[in-house]
Amino acid sequence: MIKLNGIFPPLPSSFDQDENLAPDKMRSNIEKLSAFDLRGFLVLGSNGELVHLSDTEKIQVYEMAREAIIPDKLMIAGTGGQSTRETIMLTRAAAKAGADAVLVLNPFYYKGLMKPEALKQHYFAVADASTIPLIMYNMPANSGMDMDADTLLMLSEHPNIAGMKDSGGDVAKMGAIRKRAKPEFQILAGSAGFLVPAMSVGACGGILASANIAPAQCIAMHKAFNAGDMAEASRLQLDIIPVNNAVTKKWGVPALKAAMDYIGLYGGPARKPILPLDAATKAELLKILDDYNIIS
Amino acid sequence: MIKLNGIFPPLPSSFDQDENLAPDKMRSNIEKLSAFDLRGFLVLGSNGELVHLSDTEKIQVYEMAREAIIPDKLMIAGTGGQSTRETIMLTRAAAKAGADAVLVLNPFYYKGLMKPEALKQHYFAVADASTIPLIMYNMPANSGMDMDADTLLMLSEHPNIAGMKDSGGDVAKMGAIRKRAKPEFQILAGSAGFLVPAMSVGACGGILASANIAPAQCIAMHKAFNAGDMAEASRLQLDIIPVNNAVTKKWGVPALKAAMDYIGLYGGPARKPILPLDAATKAELLKILDDYNIIS
Amino acid sequence: MIKLNGIFPPLPSSFDQDENLAPDKMRSNIEKLSAFDLRGFLVLGSNGELVHLSDTEKIQVYEMAREAIIPDKLMIAGTGGQSTRETIMLTRAAAKAGADAVLVLNPFYYKGLMKPEALKQHYFAVADASTIPLIMYNMPANSGMDMDADTLLMLSEHPNIAGMKDSGGDVAKMGAIRKRAKPEFQILAGSAGFLVPAMSVGACGGILASANIAPAQCIAMHKAFNAGDMAEASRLQLDIIPVNNAVTKKWGVPALKAAMDYIGLYGGPARKPILPLDAATKAELLKILDDYNIIS
Amino acid sequence: MIKLNGIFPPLPSSFDQDENLAPDKMRSNIEKLSAFDLRGFLVLGSNGELVHLSDTEKIQVYEMAREAIIPDKLMIAGTGGQSTRETIMLTRAAAKAGADAVLVLNPFYYKGLMKPEALKQHYFAVADASTIPLIMYNMPANSGMDMDADTLLMLSEHPNIAGMKDSGGDVAKMGAIRKRAKPEFQILAGSAGFLVPAMSVGACGGILASANIAPAQCIAMHKAFNAGDMAEASRLQLDIIPVNNAVTKKWGVPALKAAMDYIGLYGGPARKPILPLDAATKAELLKILDDYNIIS
Repeated sequence: MIKLNGIFPPLPSSFDQDENLAPDKMRSNIEKLSAFDLRGFLVLGSNGELVHLSDTEKIQVYEMAREAIIPDKLMIAGTGGQSTRETIMLTRAAAKAGADAVLVLNPFYYKGLMKPEALKQHYFAVADASTIPLIMYNMPANSGMDMDADTLLMLSEHPNIAGMKDSGGDVAKMGAIRKRAKPEFQILAGSAGFLVPAMSVGACGGILASANIAPAQCIAMHKAFNAGDMAEASRLQLDIIPVNNAVTKKWGVPALKAAMDYIGLYGGPARKPILPLDAATKAELLKILDDYNIIS
Repeated sequence: MIKLNGIFPPLPSSFDQDENLAPDKMRSNIEKLSAFDLRGFLVLGSNGELVHLSDTEKIQVYEMAREAIIPDKLMIAGTGGQSTRETIMLTRAAAKAGADAVLVLNPFYYKGLMKPEALKQHYFAVADASTIPLIMYNMPANSGMDMDADTLLMLSEHPNIAGMKDSGGDVAKMGAIRKRAKPEFQILAGSAGFLVPAMSVGACGGILASANIAPAQCIAMHKAFNAGDMAEASRLQLDIIPVNNAVTKKWGVPALKAAMDYIGLYGGPARKPILPLDAATKAELLKILDDYNIIS
Repeated sequence: MIKLNGIFPPLPSSFDQDENLAPDKMRSNIEKLSAFDLRGFLVLGSNGELVHLSDTEKIQVYEMAREAIIPDKLMIAGTGGQSTRETIMLTRAAAKAGADAVLVLNPFYYKGLMKPEALKQHYFAVADASTIPLIMYNMPANSGMDMDADTLLMLSEHPNIAGMKDSGGDVAKMGAIRKRAKPEFQILAGSAGFLVPAMSVGACGGILASANIAPAQCIAMHKAFNAGDMAEASRLQLDIIPVNNAVTKKWGVPALKAAMDYIGLYGGPARKPILPLDAATKAELLKILDDYNIIS
Repeated sequence: MIKLNGIFPPLPSSFDQDENLAPDKMRSNIEKLSAFDLRGFLVLGSNGELVHLSDTEKIQVYEMAREAIIPDKLMIAGTGGQSTRETIMLTRAAAKAGADAVLVLNPFYYKGLMKPEALKQHYFAVADASTIPLIMYNMPANSGMDMDADTLLMLSEHPNIAGMKDSGGDVAKMGAIRKRAKPEFQILAGSAGFLVPAMSVGACGGILASANIAPAQCIAMHKAFNAGDMAEASRLQLDIIPVNNAVTKKWGVPALKAAMDYIGLYGGPARKPILPLDAATKAELLKILDDYNIIS
């Protein structure tokens, strides 16, 4: 069984100045980040601009990632599309490329129709079709819908659904699921803003934007919690919140990319309509990064 | 200049029982609906399951539609994607296929980043790249975001942005835009549930799911309003609301498709995760259609 | 049976500079506004700062209003509280003071518990206890909840529930209710921003903040619609939208009060925490009023 | 300086079968709960049906509570009203009755006007007028608005604002405030559903509906965390979630009251429009309580 107990950066997809996919830049980022004790990598999550890539480009990313990620680290591939058939097609492509698991965002465009039964048929069809474990992905800030505890529990019963990533931050919901789900079901925090609180209700790790720019600190937070050193875990948790806010809720993907550029990784532009940070915001971001002493 | 003053059905995309695209069925629907005094057709809107088709399939639909739609009716093509580059690519493909205008849903996955300036750069880039007029599409129930009056007004200033479709139903917003936008800017109601109210604040027509199943009644409502016969317009408006609710807000695309099957057009299945109506709901739907006397 | 077919200003409650109730100022406003062909007045709605007055003050307002409102105009009294018992108490006090009807905002603090059955027991208990007709009041922007068409229809069946005021602006909902409710059930638009659209789906009048500052224009809009002059009705509707936005959604009660001061009525301060407009906003407001030529 | 580091039950207000206030029942509940190592009591919070009591009744509750609460336990009094003047009046009455602190829900009816500056003037005026410390109360599920981190931080700077209770459950926000607020500012979890996660980002205690029915377990959870026994704290946290959901989000005040009746405290009816639980729901609730082994 797959073990998700650790920290995963959701790798941004790299583009050159013409917004063309730049797989070599992504590969270089993976290589540099592999120096840290990460559990693995996610490609093509929200920070990976999943919705901005064509199917061909997605498969190209899966293949590049499998080559670049060393065997002792897990490769999770984002494959959630709006239709069940597209999601299955991408899931198969990711498995074929060698991914260890897929992360499947729920379909959300027809929100009003996404009742539990529709979600069940969708997730079960994908999980049935997949040769590798499936991790559900709940991301209300982007999808505009929030899968509730009862729905997620129902879905967790499928033998090939190994866990979930929750980016909504409702730790009471995570706790309710932890209490009632099968023991081997694994919960991942979707943001470094609440990794320690999520672990305090049973999450085993996290897929954290901040792990792209502060991997050592995210890993230290995870280890401190697991070692029972709550004082240290809490201190690291509070310290990272301003940085994490800056590269997620507040300024999002372009801030994460600017921060990566700042620390010596490749950030580059996002695809439009995502704009680069304006100069004032960028200065504010760099100050937050400096205050956090991110480079050390 | 394009004249949008009339009724457009947003044509569902037709699939066979294996969920494969069935262009002949769509063509047949277009041919049957062309007997009515419609202003034209929209392909690949929300009812056309835009988000469920691959790029290749989308282009196939554009080409089929242009062949099937007779020259005196307009062809509007939905081309909105999450990235500016994909939207431009689809817009060019639609224009090449012979569409008269494109309907562009705003990008919405990165809601928090879709500030007015980002929307402006997106819409202006697409409008600049397009050889045919662009109609903006605001669909808060599906996109999870609502473009406000000030933003829409700013966008309306581009010379190649000819109008907007608003499915949110905020008629005060439509009125505010009508009052301040350039005179040639055209507002389309996005639902038969508020066509007459929208026209009372200056909308010139509508793209109406109900026009797929009750084209005569939608056209009569539009004509009654324009003829100054408010009593008749209001009566038709109130009469259609239950039917319209059934095939939009309440049960959505699968109800629209079931209604099309019922009246002798091709409905067929939606792509999953959209499920067909269960038997009880379908019975309720048919009763609503019968009460409305839809077949006459 | 009470006839609500006309325009009602929701009178602001007047306070002196120390925020003490100033009934004489309200009376003077009523007297001045009585020169217009209004159907009546509402006291203690949202613009009347219902939630800012003590029970004693509310009863004082009811009594003042009855004295000031001439017999051929209706007096509607806002009496909605969070508990059924408080609402009944205020309803009885309003009836005793001589009100012609009560306007009852739904309880909303315990949103999660306000299921249809709870609302039914609440409204039916108040309607049973009331010797004068009850008008329901739906105000989602302030209450944070939105009573839906099915609930409102169920409530409309009580013989002493005469109508509803809807400030949410969902005209499709108003139409759905108009279509199915008992014929004598009366729908009032809750904002001048959508009076004409609401009338086009069967509303018979409106309780309009703007009627405090532009009574002649609101009345003219109502009359034009009823006379079948849609061109004039639409023109008046579009013209008033910027003014109406300014004194409702955009800047609210303090803008309405500032506008009343500007045109020679008494506005004065709202009770805190509502702050007066800052100087820049006030200048912007006055410009909007001047552009509308409000004083003529 | 007041020390809030512990567990507080938000005491329901007790009513007899005619919905009249029953202070003796509340007193009896306080006396029974005083056997536990609680830090104190809150009267007239959301579970205390603050919005259902008249001002006279509120003062009666403050006075009863001070008599009943033994001196080594803190008495916190809910005093938040919609107007600043009412809030100050109630705050003074609570202080006069002997409360140790006041809990002030933000005004929320005029949501659109409750910008940071309005909230600042409101809270600072109340804090200035109060002779006892003020605790802010953020309760988005009921108020329909959510005070953000920046606003709460600005408000936390007032010397007489001692802390905040957050019932929204956004632990990343609590952490952001903990990181930046003055050291003596105290954060209280507003629900037993996330007490341990909240403490992991610096909360010092909680005002927990569940502490009315499971005081020993809530206290044990708090102590385990403070003793560094995270395994035990997490276990207690997960165990209490189903019970806590039942008496808060899912079924609310009537479920809390039914649970109190079940364990030998006085629950009784809530004031209408809050309905008692129906028989099926009550049976489900009792099963949840039994599964939790609440009576031991």
